[in-house]
Amino acid sequence: MSETFYVVPEEQHNALVTAAYKKRGYSTAEAQAGARFCAEASRHGIRTHNALKALHLDHFLGSAAGGCVPKAKLEKVKLPYRASQVWNANRKLGQATGYAAIEAAIKLADKYGVGMVSVDNAFHYLWGGGYVMDAAKRGYIAYTNCTAALAEVVPFGGKFPTLGTNPHSWGFPTTEAIGYPIVIDWATSVVAMGRVQQLLREGKQLPPNAAVDETGTPTTDPAKAKYLIPFGAHKGYGLALMNEIVGAFIGGSIPTLRNRWDKVGDDKGTCTFFFQVWKPEAMSAGAFAKGRNQAENVKAVIADILGHGNEGCMLPGQLEAQAAARCAKNGGLLFSEAEINAFNEVAAEARKARWKLSDFKVAE
Amino acid sequence: MSETFYVVPEEQHNALVTAAYKKRGYSTAEAQAGARFCAEASRHGIRTHNALKALHLDHFLGSAAGGCVPKAKLEKVKLPYRASQVWNANRKLGQATGYAAIEAAIKLADKYGVGMVSVDNAFHYLWGGGYVMDAAKRGYIAYTNCTAALAEVVPFGGKFPTLGTNPHSWGFPTTEAIGYPIVIDWATSVVAMGRVQQLLREGKQLPPNAAVDETGTPTTDPAKAKYLIPFGAHKGYGLALMNEIVGAFIGGSIPTLRNRWDKVGDDKGTCTFFFQVWKPEAMSAGAFAKGRNQAENVKAVIADILGHGNEGCMLPGQLEAQAAARCAKNGGLLFSEAEINAFNEVAAEARKARWKLSDFKVAE
Repeated sequence: MSETFYVVPEEQHNALVTAAYKKRGYSTAEAQAGARFCAEASRHGIRTHNALKALHLDHFLGSAAGGCVPKAKLEKVKLPYRASQVWNANRKLGQATGYAAIEAAIKLADKYGVGMVSVDNAFHYLWGGGYVMDAAKRGYIAYTNCTAALAEVVPFGGKFPTLGTNPHSWGFPTTEAIGYPIVIDWATSVVAMGRVQQLLREGKQLPPNAAVDETGTPTTDPAKAKYLIPFGAHKGYGLALMNEIVGAFIGGSIPTLRNRWDKVGDDKGTCTFFFQVWKPEAMSAGAFAKGRNQAENVKAVIADILGHGNEGCMLPGQLEAQAAARCAKNGGLLFSEAEINAFNEVAAEARKARWKLSDFKVAE
Repeated sequence: MSETFYVVPEEQHNALVTAAYKKRGYSTAEAQAGARFCAEASRHGIRTHNALKALHLDHFLGSAAGGCVPKAKLEKVKLPYRASQVWNANRKLGQATGYAAIEAAIKLADKYGVGMVSVDNAFHYLWGGGYVMDAAKRGYIAYTNCTAALAEVVPFGGKFPTLGTNPHSWGFPTTEAIGYPIVIDWATSVVAMGRVQQLLREGKQLPPNAAVDETGTPTTDPAKAKYLIPFGAHKGYGLALMNEIVGAFIGGSIPTLRNRWDKVGDDKGTCTFFFQVWKPEAMSAGAFAKGRNQAENVKAVIADILGHGNEGCMLPGQLEAQAAARCAKNGGLLFSEAEINAFNEVAAEARKARWKLSDFKVAE
């Protein structure tokens, strides 16, 4: 990589992010969960969903806009289904809610083999991959989806954005097999709106079938691109639709009002989260070929997939694992000069000491 | 539609298909499950996975090849996880296994809110959409994936096929909201191998990025196309990979040996199935906007998605519902003359009376 990164000690990052959340009214526990999650995103190279994005989102859609409520309590809805829980998050901070939900789903999976947690009145959880990666590192298969903040995606064959970028994330406990968890994690649009803006700044074109202009006509010109398109035609459309339907069963209202707090009125504008954890021991028939155990079998299957001339293929989660290894080697989280400058705006808001670039070593 | 279809009474179809399975050694219950499932595929317009395909697959990979064993018993593996079951299908007929598994998952979901059934040593279940549609019509959300029979798909960035066309299927109980269940159901390759052969016969080109030649180079020439490519670049690749990883946790062995009975040796060549059922009542926070109930809320969300100029968009499952309505109107299952001729080869094998084209009315 040609970009220069600076090594920020994780404690220093977490202290500033925690202070910023507390300044906005969040409890210490919420602020710490928020900071911890953002550190994980940065550790795994998820620069689009780091602390800067989290605090920005909180400002635009969250605590300053009514979409997120500091010190909100998670309420469990009473239901008789023992492997499932339903929560009213009351707009609690997304990262605190997500961590609590994956933890609850793990406890259910330990007992029932599978656990499911549906969350209504949720606020943006940033990076679904983070929750399922956490579970996968602890030996579980995990899945999450959510309704993304804003409807920016046009249904396949349509003209107007009525779907979120609605991501899906799956994590698999493959550390014993290959050294890191496989994490499949992406939005159902070809690109994010942030990518459109980046290409516009850089004077570059969009890939084909990624965006439409305001009349619903496909365009590769980022200056004309107004709405996004699902990846993979009707297949990605189905996956984007799924989050809306799951959300509708949980309690989410109509997509085009979501987080449009100026228009919600007496309707409902919050997101929904859906979490599942599956215990691998509750899926194994115990009859692996050649006397392998479960982890050895997973390893053999992956070796076959990446064999036969496919040695150059990546696995989902591999880039994230490489980013984490680089952080570990450098002993901290890695940020660019521009990101450190942005953290200093956060420091000013939180009335904390600025970070000095000269205090940080340059990352190898 | 310009193609002429003939109306075959469902009982007549089921009697012939049942007889054909019984002639090959299957029990009456297995043969009836096989016929019932194929009737559902034909009713919903799934011509690629009708009885003709089922019996053909059984011949090439199944009872005649060792991949499927008539009168095999489903064995439940003893495990302490109460919302999950693991079965050894002992290569039982795929449709009989699939129906039994979705039924078991429904019973678990009734009690626990979510139910999970993992199946090892399985034989091709044909059309995953059929099982989840069945559950969705009965009020449940359902999901299934399986490892497809043969490794025909090249991982993203690779050269050699080490993945199946590995389908995913989700069904949603939306009949009260929109008149039919939303069923998201597709393979993770851009096209199926059968489609490549069809385009070759018709002298047409493949879409871009659907197939590669024997050196791993993308081609749109069906004569050169040898292996398939996942849809949606790395995103579809992740979804194809998922079935292999889930299969590996259950008990499936290395993908390139699957159903290659001449090469399996002391390794393992069977497929795996994975089923989940979620009970919508176990996901609802009960706090729908504007006093809606759950079904009304789902209806409002779908109306918003297909509003705002998107009225021409299709929903997944809509074509299948339209096909079923056409069958209901005509009072039978619809087959082309070529299909009826193929059924007469089945009749000859089963030593049953041939179907006469003149006995069937032409479908409206």
